Amino acid sequence: MAVTLYELAGADPALRFSPYCWRTRLALAHKGLTVETVPWRFTEKERLAFSGQGKVPVLVDGARVVFDSWTIAGYLEDSYPDRPSLFGGPGGRAGARFINAWADSSLHPGIARMVVRDILDVLDPKDHGYFRASREGMFGATLEAVVADREQRLEAWRAVLTPVRLVLKAQPFLGGAGPSYADHILFGTLQWPRCVSSFALLAADDPVAAWFARVGALYGGLGANALTV
Amino acid sequence: MAVTLYELAGADPALRFSPYCWRTRLALAHKGLTVETVPWRFTEKERLAFSGQGKVPVLVDGARVVFDSWTIAGYLEDSYPDRPSLFGGPGGRAGARFINAWADSSLHPGIARMVVRDILDVLDPKDHGYFRASREGMFGATLEAVVADREQRLEAWRAVLTPVRLVLKAQPFLGGAGPSYADHILFGTLQWPRCVSSFALLAADDPVAAWFARVGALYGGLGANALTV
Repeated sequence: MAVTLYELAGADPALRFSPYCWRTRLALAHKGLTVETVPWRFTEKERLAFSGQGKVPVLVDGARVVFDSWTIAGYLEDSYPDRPSLFGGPGGRAGARFINAWADSSLHPGIARMVVRDILDVLDPKDHGYFRASREGMFGATLEAVVADREQRLEAWRAVLTPVRLVLKAQPFLGGAGPSYADHILFGTLQWPRCVSSFALLAADDPVAAWFARVGALYGGLGANALTV
Repeated sequence: MAVTLYELAGADPALRFSPYCWRTRLALAHKGLTVETVPWRFTEKERLAFSGQGKVPVLVDGARVVFDSWTIAGYLEDSYPDRPSLFGGPGGRAGARFINAWADSSLHPGIARMVVRDILDVLDPKDHGYFRASREGMFGATLEAVVADREQRLEAWRAVLTPVRLVLKAQPFLGGAGPSYADHILFGTLQWPRCVSSFALLAADDPVAAWFARVGALYGGLGANALTV
């Protein structure tokens, strides 16, 4: 039986751009699980009421309802131990937790500051008011003001990826010789701006861009073939 | 037979302050290996000629000579597979490589900019000229100028530790329920300024400080009992 995944979607229901949902999509593909995805919009909180909270991804696996991408990854690893491992052992799970925390805290705020205005343009009109008000509240500025100097902030943001470049000098994936959930984490982080914006975060000759293409080609091109703006 | 480790030392040969040597010391203790340490000074390049390069740590294990802390950790894991694991599996080795790259690239430059002048004071006089000239060349400024605004840079440096704090909300060690080489890496990073300077990098109520004390207490208090200035 296929699992069901509630995923953030744009006005075009095929546009899926949440970094957290992308992590889960790749993790499901890595485990070889068939998934039915359900497009969901920011303001459809009541449609997630069954999960006891209001954010995606939400995974429904038979009678089990699991939310939060990190929790879902652990659930998949523990529930499907005979499928390819997401973590490569207990030390790998601990390491992936660090990479998850690092990406969310060190990369995401800078990405948001560069593409948050572009996100508005892809949203279903019913989400516009909520998105603008909530994000402008977080940033304490209009979305237009937040992104105004993104060209100037790009170099500092790219520097945060230095440890990734160092690792990729020694191995093709963050997971080592092959991909693991560590790769799914960072792929989700970078797929998010790719799907919603034409502003290029990675330089074409960045080894991280080559790695991103490598991960995008996995699982039948799941990531690479995603709809983008 | 005990292994031998060449370690960076100060004027007081008991003062050992290299972040990389500390990583190796903890890894050796984790593996339950007895070690004889040999104090070494920056300018004693010829004493390391047998290793084919000029930096510590250098590990001598019987006929094997291994240098570079990351390479040594892998050597220990592969050569002593029946001892407690440093990585917790292949995924853990990949995760530790990321944490190693992250600490070296994201934390070390900021630490150097805060304590490099203090290091000069602990060095053997014969190292003074080499250290000042090489470091002032790297920074393009006098050591005194480099550290002059360290109070102002402390908050931004502490923010880089955010992912560590997020991980420690969920588990006591970077390695998970117990310590691993991931913990040795960051412990070495923070032991370095602790040994050479009275300038406190961590706030007393920082969860990272509690973790640092926890790791310092391991292996019979190996890290905690180190000589400091």
